[in-house]
Amino acid sequence: MDKIKIGDTFTEEVRYSQNDVDAFAKITGDNNPIHINAEYAAKTIFGKPIVHGFLAGAVFSKVFGTQWPGEGTIYMSQEMSFRAPVFVDNDYTACFEVVEVDEVKHRAIIKCTLVNDETKAEVIIGKAKLQHGVRF
Amino acid sequence: MDKIKIGDTFTEEVRYSQNDVDAFAKITGDNNPIHINAEYAAKTIFGKPIVHGFLAGAVFSKVFGTQWPGEGTIYMSQEMSFRAPVFVDNDYTACFEVVEVDEVKHRAIIKCTLVNDETKAEVIIGKAKLQHGVRF
Repeated sequence: MDKIKIGDTFTEEVRYSQNDVDAFAKITGDNNPIHINAEYAAKTIFGKPIVHGFLAGAVFSKVFGTQWPGEGTIYMSQEMSFRAPVFVDNDYTACFEVVEVDEVKHRAIIKCTLVNDETKAEVIIGKAKLQHGVRF
Repeated sequence: MDKIKIGDTFTEEVRYSQNDVDAFAKITGDNNPIHINAEYAAKTIFGKPIVHGFLAGAVFSKVFGTQWPGEGTIYMSQEMSFRAPVFVDNDYTACFEVVEVDEVKHRAIIKCTLVNDETKAEVIIGKAKLQHGVRF
């Protein structure tokens, strides 16, 4: 398996439905009406329901654990800055770039960005610290 | 509504079932077998399925958006360091403490910790930056 190096990138498309958001609200208990009540959301500055930040950001975790680097990844930490709302039934792209690698400790820092495909706005910006015995 | 001040604390109990974890895997696509396959998980260093970090940490978001400060909170950012596994059907306590308040910008920094009720281990340690027009 190839090593992952500084400057390497990865992207993943993501889109959440209202059903996904409703299910997330149910399992987490986060029933804020901004996420699950279209009538309430319509009266806010967002105008329509927004995806929970932790559901939107979960694409970072999914990619790390199952795709890139994938199995064997130890997820050490994650920072996320929520810059703009994530809406249901909109397309987003999770963009990843390796910014630091420690080959001795097999650790890397990955820049993670969630981008609105339509507006190109960076809606979540963050960094993750990962460990992988083989790929870093 | 009272202002939230430096040193103020809040706690919330949380417990996730395998059904919660399976539902989270389904809506996020994070099907890493460490979370959903007991047989696979038994052969890892964890010995049993572990809760996704983003599901475990979602209790922070739930508290901010629905309880403390509650409605009207703007969630600016979250850092999480994953220190130890979170297991299904175990009890955890999410602990919050206000460490900084900016009364001009109505912002605060909240220390967030997820603690294993049995072992007292801090399994997630982090910080959140929030804005609330009335409570900060």
